[in-house]
Amino acid sequence: MTRGELIAQIKAKKSFLCIGLDTALDKIPKYLLDTEDPIFEFNKQIIDLTKDLCVAYKPNLAFYESLGIKGWQSLQKTLDYIPKDIFTIADAKRGDVGNTSSMYAKAFFENMNFDSVTVAPYMGKDSVQPFFVYNNKWVILLALTSNAGGKDFQLIESDGKPLYQQVLETSSEWGTDSNMMYVVGATRANRLGEIRKTIPNHFLLVPGVGAQGGSLEEVAKYGMNKDCGLLVNSSRDIIYASSEKDFAEVAREKAKEIQLQMEKELVKSNIL
Amino acid sequence: MTRGELIAQIKAKKSFLCIGLDTALDKIPKYLLDTEDPIFEFNKQIIDLTKDLCVAYKPNLAFYESLGIKGWQSLQKTLDYIPKDIFTIADAKRGDVGNTSSMYAKAFFENMNFDSVTVAPYMGKDSVQPFFVYNNKWVILLALTSNAGGKDFQLIESDGKPLYQQVLETSSEWGTDSNMMYVVGATRANRLGEIRKTIPNHFLLVPGVGAQGGSLEEVAKYGMNKDCGLLVNSSRDIIYASSEKDFAEVAREKAKEIQLQMEKELVKSNIL
Repeated sequence: MTRGELIAQIKAKKSFLCIGLDTALDKIPKYLLDTEDPIFEFNKQIIDLTKDLCVAYKPNLAFYESLGIKGWQSLQKTLDYIPKDIFTIADAKRGDVGNTSSMYAKAFFENMNFDSVTVAPYMGKDSVQPFFVYNNKWVILLALTSNAGGKDFQLIESDGKPLYQQVLETSSEWGTDSNMMYVVGATRANRLGEIRKTIPNHFLLVPGVGAQGGSLEEVAKYGMNKDCGLLVNSSRDIIYASSEKDFAEVAREKAKEIQLQMEKELVKSNIL
Repeated sequence: MTRGELIAQIKAKKSFLCIGLDTALDKIPKYLLDTEDPIFEFNKQIIDLTKDLCVAYKPNLAFYESLGIKGWQSLQKTLDYIPKDIFTIADAKRGDVGNTSSMYAKAFFENMNFDSVTVAPYMGKDSVQPFFVYNNKWVILLALTSNAGGKDFQLIESDGKPLYQQVLETSSEWGTDSNMMYVVGATRANRLGEIRKTIPNHFLLVPGVGAQGGSLEEVAKYGMNKDCGLLVNSSRDIIYASSEKDFAEVAREKAKEIQLQMEKELVKSNIL
């Protein structure tokens, strides 16, 4: 998907919501366990009832890998089921030496046809570049993550500059704002203003709103740019809002609530 | 596998060789493409002819993932075929927020029964800890990698201390030398002495000897400890030493050559 198509979708749906498909057998409604592929059945119903409210879906690869080959089958079916005009993110946190990253790129962009993959920056330039070979595919590089351990190394300062800032500055030379995004956790929204000075145009994938305590209003205030430039992710808050048969309807209500807040922020910033 | 079992294996085989199974369809002998599962068939022959010379096998996950579900099947068959007394490494470079890393741990330690998995440190403590829940399983954390991009962030200094050093110091508190190893590239052997001051007892997984230019003698000189403390990996140099029908025999010759050098180093250090 191109940058332009993504922006058009945000404007049309009045939403910059990404729904995380962290689908686990012990979290989905019990009655689904009797179906042939409970993980896919759950995702399918979530997608059916939320696809007009979100602009991206983000399957969390670990949840599928933990189920072995059956999990990969559920993932492939889910990906095939997502409408083509919705941005797809393989949340995989990959990254390895060049020839190996090429193989990961092949796995996610050729074999599975995701629009994007999350990548860890620790191994540097040649671990990221192979993903850029594909047209209209995206690298979403970890910059500042929302988890507690995010501070262990990402905030270490060198010449007064935290590591994540160094990652932004160095890596933004590797790609463009049309093939690269960054992960910036909502729990660190106070740093978004600073981050926007370094990368004014890039899209940010922002986890941590809701369950983890980040505020959508803060994120929009400091992180939004003229094209929106944000994909705000919510996973558990939406998909597990109910553990009963009505899970997909309740997920829709929850997603609708967030979409309406997003619409307000988009209007506030004169994007709509 | 326990630390003691690994050390015993090193002494018995007079080897600290790890063979990387970076198995790709366009690199293996053509005649194998007619078999039902060419990737497994290749690995099987390599394992048959090298299992007495190495102490570990390291499938590189990207190569299997790039083939989709068939690749995962080849990987599972390969893992099942490796003798139980040989250490197995899922070279996966995973790492994510706690509940997600738990899923990766489940994937590699329960579903696939690997002895260890390589993990990227960028997301900090809670991205690594879930792997320690399993007894006699290991995290192999990236510290200083052998690729060109390894210098982009790993060498950034804070208070005169490079990031990889900070990773070693901080993370060595998270686990023990019985459930944690580190990746240190052979191309940075000059830094091994310094690294050994921080982590005298931990095992190091060392890629980059051979093809990438690192020297086994240098690695042993600066990196070996009283229990050996090294797993030196070679992938392409061994498994692709010949592209003909004799590939497994030639791989054996190459592995034997390295094993004999390793034996010399073990004798030199009074480990044998």
